[in-house]
Amino acid sequence: MTATLLHHTYGKSAVRLTTVHRHDDGRHDLAELSVDIELEGDFGRSYTHGDNSRIVATDTMKNTVYALARQHVIVDVEAFAQTVARHFLDSTDAVTAATVSIRQAGWARLSDESGAPHPHAFVSTGAERRTAQVRADRDGTVTVHGGLDDLVVLKTARSGFTGFQRDRYTSLKETTDRIMATSVTAVWRYTAVPADPTAAHDAIRRAMLTAFAGHDSLAVQQTLLVMAQATLDACAEVAEITMTLPNQHRLLVDLSPFSLDNPNAVFVATSEPYGMITATVGRNAE
Amino acid sequence: MTATLLHHTYGKSAVRLTTVHRHDDGRHDLAELSVDIELEGDFGRSYTHGDNSRIVATDTMKNTVYALARQHVIVDVEAFAQTVARHFLDSTDAVTAATVSIRQAGWARLSDESGAPHPHAFVSTGAERRTAQVRADRDGTVTVHGGLDDLVVLKTARSGFTGFQRDRYTSLKETTDRIMATSVTAVWRYTAVPADPTAAHDAIRRAMLTAFAGHDSLAVQQTLLVMAQATLDACAEVAEITMTLPNQHRLLVDLSPFSLDNPNAVFVATSEPYGMITATVGRNAE
Amino acid sequence: MTATLLHHTYGKSAVRLTTVHRHDDGRHDLAELSVDIELEGDFGRSYTHGDNSRIVATDTMKNTVYALARQHVIVDVEAFAQTVARHFLDSTDAVTAATVSIRQAGWARLSDESGAPHPHAFVSTGAERRTAQVRADRDGTVTVHGGLDDLVVLKTARSGFTGFQRDRYTSLKETTDRIMATSVTAVWRYTAVPADPTAAHDAIRRAMLTAFAGHDSLAVQQTLLVMAQATLDACAEVAEITMTLPNQHRLLVDLSPFSLDNPNAVFVATSEPYGMITATVGRNAE
Amino acid sequence: MTATLLHHTYGKSAVRLTTVHRHDDGRHDLAELSVDIELEGDFGRSYTHGDNSRIVATDTMKNTVYALARQHVIVDVEAFAQTVARHFLDSTDAVTAATVSIRQAGWARLSDESGAPHPHAFVSTGAERRTAQVRADRDGTVTVHGGLDDLVVLKTARSGFTGFQRDRYTSLKETTDRIMATSVTAVWRYTAVPADPTAAHDAIRRAMLTAFAGHDSLAVQQTLLVMAQATLDACAEVAEITMTLPNQHRLLVDLSPFSLDNPNAVFVATSEPYGMITATVGRNAE
Repeated sequence: MTATLLHHTYGKSAVRLTTVHRHDDGRHDLAELSVDIELEGDFGRSYTHGDNSRIVATDTMKNTVYALARQHVIVDVEAFAQTVARHFLDSTDAVTAATVSIRQAGWARLSDESGAPHPHAFVSTGAERRTAQVRADRDGTVTVHGGLDDLVVLKTARSGFTGFQRDRYTSLKETTDRIMATSVTAVWRYTAVPADPTAAHDAIRRAMLTAFAGHDSLAVQQTLLVMAQATLDACAEVAEITMTLPNQHRLLVDLSPFSLDNPNAVFVATSEPYGMITATVGRNAE
Repeated sequence: MTATLLHHTYGKSAVRLTTVHRHDDGRHDLAELSVDIELEGDFGRSYTHGDNSRIVATDTMKNTVYALARQHVIVDVEAFAQTVARHFLDSTDAVTAATVSIRQAGWARLSDESGAPHPHAFVSTGAERRTAQVRADRDGTVTVHGGLDDLVVLKTARSGFTGFQRDRYTSLKETTDRIMATSVTAVWRYTAVPADPTAAHDAIRRAMLTAFAGHDSLAVQQTLLVMAQATLDACAEVAEITMTLPNQHRLLVDLSPFSLDNPNAVFVATSEPYGMITATVGRNAE
Repeated sequence: MTATLLHHTYGKSAVRLTTVHRHDDGRHDLAELSVDIELEGDFGRSYTHGDNSRIVATDTMKNTVYALARQHVIVDVEAFAQTVARHFLDSTDAVTAATVSIRQAGWARLSDESGAPHPHAFVSTGAERRTAQVRADRDGTVTVHGGLDDLVVLKTARSGFTGFQRDRYTSLKETTDRIMATSVTAVWRYTAVPADPTAAHDAIRRAMLTAFAGHDSLAVQQTLLVMAQATLDACAEVAEITMTLPNQHRLLVDLSPFSLDNPNAVFVATSEPYGMITATVGRNAE
Repeated sequence: MTATLLHHTYGKSAVRLTTVHRHDDGRHDLAELSVDIELEGDFGRSYTHGDNSRIVATDTMKNTVYALARQHVIVDVEAFAQTVARHFLDSTDAVTAATVSIRQAGWARLSDESGAPHPHAFVSTGAERRTAQVRADRDGTVTVHGGLDDLVVLKTARSGFTGFQRDRYTSLKETTDRIMATSVTAVWRYTAVPADPTAAHDAIRRAMLTAFAGHDSLAVQQTLLVMAQATLDACAEVAEITMTLPNQHRLLVDLSPFSLDNPNAVFVATSEPYGMITATVGRNAE
């Protein structure tokens, strides 16, 4: 054997569960999660010798998620991710670190006949996901990230792109009036988990949307920083944030061959290729 | 040649466009559509002889969608589908019938700082699509369908499934309390297009949701009929409706091997296999 | 109740299974299927009254597929689809017709060290699927279709498109040399199932590919008919065939702004919009 | 402004192109690529001030890919990725590092009537992709990775899983005979690009497949290491390799409720949840 293991992890992905929490007044709370578990530890002999004596079966990981979901009311995914991560450190000596990532689907309550929130009927809010990731290691270090995926936004005014570098292969025209559309992915690190993580998540999301809508964009890069700044302002417990903003281009159609003008009225919506803008933003030392 | 053409159509699919309509008060209306065009007609010699003299290139169809979108403000997809369908009947002698299908993405206005609807910033409402389909033929017959795709709903109470047939391969337990989840696809035929098709669409969608939430379901089949009835009640111009309700099962986890009960608290969310319930519902003769 | 049921079916979709058939010489045959079942029959009272007494649970359908797969070696999907369809007619009085659709994934044997076909190790052949659909009704009528999905082919020569109609919105240039790419979907109806359906399927697929590669294409429409003709020629039991050929455009890049020519060398590969060509082709009466 | 940029990159993703290289003998070579470009550099003022004067528009990146594809025959994606990466270092002072990632679709030549390889007609080999990634920085460091995605393999014998840890939530049975199925993702770092990178890629892929088929698997972890070792043995220029092997479970169906046995004959094919095994493997110091 000339090969040597430099790094290895294993786990279970896409453990999907739905939990219902029934209140005394007949109201049900619903949570739908997809959980990924990834373990680091003393598992090398499984790779080198097929010796599984230190291996927790990934099937057991799946069972564990369901069993822990029964024993803990899932209110905030950040807390449940910690519960799951700690379980594997506690239950298995070979584990040196456990990372638990959760994606939560959104469900909005329907209305009942009187217009009040319905106690047990829901409609999906779409592809957007609330995310959480917890990494806990045997030394007691716990890192908690919140986040969101697939928050799709678009503005039809107050976005431009001018003054960029021109070279032999540049054909793009400058514009002070374009459509900007993107699907926001954001992951932020908490210095401490807020007292109400759901309220914090909602405040961050609202701050991002307000920043997106309210500023004059000179570049997607600038928009990213404005949204990151809004996040830091909205939640004191956020130490830093990584955002990814694909530029989902809407291209102005050239209608001049058909003797028609097109004063920013009709655009082709495209999926590919797309611009990809990403940055990690932290707080200034003071 | 021993082969004979029995039926043929051709067209362009997935023509995606974004239109912006600018009001004098600075408010922008946004429409995002994906348009499919399908032509029937005297195109046989293209198949048999490679003679394209009667063929409208599908590239021309794409251009036509963009050009017509410039010349008509897109308010209702039912109307725009008719505009496009009629164009091809008018412009091309070989066409005997044109079918235009549109899927419209949902965008909700964001709020501005004061909480009022934002004039030009939007957030996606998810995977749900409003649909319209118009078929127009040279004899003057025009058939208009409205519809929706991917309206995902779930209820955690007032759903059961009992009394079904049992045979050698039946293992499912009867239940009076289960989760019901589905992704509604519905297509309804209009006898006449309502004066305000968007208001009609919204009323139908609301009626479906109210029916879904408000009734005691004994079977997905029954729920389908209740929702179809609600549609007919909500809109006098709907002659009939076809609905498809996949049963997106949430399976109760058996936690007894782990000495835990599970009183309808933790479920596995599954994608496959899924039940598939479909029906076409019309009005009773009176 | 003002609504009336005009048509209804229900069933189970995406029942996925893997079967292994072990030969005495140590060779294993592998089949991977996804099965859809759709029943027609006397199920109206489930819709109208929530009376499920005539309803076969879709969970039972799933179990039935697995149980029948245990009791029949799956060699040809056409035969297994018939077995499943007939089961539901036999087992359930309320059923008037059963339709069973199967999609089969492709797996190719790997080689062993000596280059011979490996007895039990396989590699996926991709997204292409062999399909079969059987509809059997209580009157004894059985209709069998074979087919394939997602056979993706491309040719870089001997394809053109000229002589098409030009109107106000036409901007496409004529070409005698373009790339033609498509993903073939084909469904053919058998008058009688061939003695060896797998051999028939392979012969049809090979005939389609040879026809695609070997002819000079003047239009995708013409290519479709050439491939359909080849199918009819390859298999006497095929009565008619429906083919769908999306035109997956490869667009020549205009490099002239960069002082470069582009003699059919560099193309943009696009997914949307796409042309959509479809036809049903039968045999000439003789 | 309390926010500070900690890290940032931007670029263009999913630049799809098809190239045709025409040989004198009438044979055409086809390449289909999807290219991602990511730049690091002195772009901070675009984020902080909307100053784009150092920004290469991502639209220019797209044009550049097409223009470079015209000026270089694409034989190996590793070489083309280097060409593109170096271009941005050369053309733009602000760039400190460029990373170019390419995914290449597979096309196999069809046969002509005589059974010989067809000069210009091809069939897709499926979802598997050959990948390459090059990162080049201003200091002259160039890192080249080869790889492959979505190589889907399955074996029906010589795979087991026993001796794993059991705890309160373990219900999985030990087995010495199961189906193992996975979709291989592998990325390997070259110390030097081989003289014939396509031959190296093919040799590595063949070595992986032979190793997968030929060994007795005691764990997916062990299989991973065996395949990694085979890669290192097959290509002297590979310094290290990272592999990801999702365990795409085939679950034995319990047919005992139906009075049927199931001697490893019928399995449920599942997509989720799935096990996830990953490791990076290097060469032993000698």
